[in-house]
Amino acid sequence: MKKFAVVLSGCGVYDGAEIHEAVLTMLAIVKNGGSYQIFAPDIAQHHVINHFTGKEVNENRNVLVESARIARGKIQTLSAFDANLYDALIFPGGFGCAKNLSTFAFKGENCEVNKDVVEAVKTMVSANKPIGALCIAPVLFAKILKNIEVSIGNDEQTAIKIEKMGARHFKTKHNQVIKDAKLKVFTTPCYMLDATIAQIAEGAENIVKAMIDAI
Amino acid sequence: MKKFAVVLSGCGVYDGAEIHEAVLTMLAIVKNGGSYQIFAPDIAQHHVINHFTGKEVNENRNVLVESARIARGKIQTLSAFDANLYDALIFPGGFGCAKNLSTFAFKGENCEVNKDVVEAVKTMVSANKPIGALCIAPVLFAKILKNIEVSIGNDEQTAIKIEKMGARHFKTKHNQVIKDAKLKVFTTPCYMLDATIAQIAEGAENIVKAMIDAI
Repeated sequence: MKKFAVVLSGCGVYDGAEIHEAVLTMLAIVKNGGSYQIFAPDIAQHHVINHFTGKEVNENRNVLVESARIARGKIQTLSAFDANLYDALIFPGGFGCAKNLSTFAFKGENCEVNKDVVEAVKTMVSANKPIGALCIAPVLFAKILKNIEVSIGNDEQTAIKIEKMGARHFKTKHNQVIKDAKLKVFTTPCYMLDATIAQIAEGAENIVKAMIDAI
Repeated sequence: MKKFAVVLSGCGVYDGAEIHEAVLTMLAIVKNGGSYQIFAPDIAQHHVINHFTGKEVNENRNVLVESARIARGKIQTLSAFDANLYDALIFPGGFGCAKNLSTFAFKGENCEVNKDVVEAVKTMVSANKPIGALCIAPVLFAKILKNIEVSIGNDEQTAIKIEKMGARHFKTKHNQVIKDAKLKVFTTPCYMLDATIAQIAEGAENIVKAMIDAI
């Protein structure tokens, strides 16, 4: 049974992990015969967005604690991640990738990436194990790995920033997966395109299957 | 295209809607050719549970605002629900059903149910439209409708309370759906049984399909 590590960035598209992408990634892993362990960094969220009004509110939440909602409590802190124990590593999307796991939302190509995310990605790549990212999460890989091929769909401004970080961006449609064969990096656009939840399920299924084939 | 109203009770299994059940219900609706609108009551959560530690924390959250995380902001207050606009009504599970939508977690068979939930359920039943509930959510139907047939899986204490409210409980295994043919009430156990996320997807798929057949 192939073991995936799934890294979340909170719980909610505007300040954390995109919930549909997270759940449907987990579903795709299990449906394809794999198992998963969820991780998140034990850090403060950048901010809290009221998802009904879309406005920032004066609250403090923690990325690990909120991610635990999606994980039903079964979660580990990302600093405890050990690449030896997993066959693949995958990041669902959501603004949490660009606000909590990195500062991409604020600094674009000059962003910093959380050190535990950097460590997890680099150790998996060094071990020649597949890594995957949905939606906006590929920006993390572009910043960390630089010379790779990725896709976040067709958003031009984000694509330009990805290229400034040293990566090559390919436009994609729903369900398409871009594979960087050299480093086993897999990316797919999901909610970076206007999508139904069924299209998210297909995108998650396609990237997980492609990653399993590369293990 | 059959239109479902999906009622959420927050965002997280221990104090709100069960996230996997909510997302996979939405997926099942769209995969089977339907569409959905999400609703939640605009009320305070009973409490907030830290899903990493399992302990209650001193915070205040709102059921509509937190449910909006699962809905990606596309949500309406349950008091605005109009049964004329929908073909079916469905409640994913999670403790929010027993703590926010009702007081079942605290008062068992003597619980009260949120008035907007009562109104939504009664108007759909009066219109002979199917209603569905996953996991613990069938307790809401038992309290409101009394003389019906439902299932929450095999938890004996909950089943006894359901029968005390006037309903008949049937034991079920994964993916089984109990149908009360007279009132078009559909229920399935999901995470009331020890389940994988793939089994939740199958349960959601089965109940949604059965409800569509009854429209």
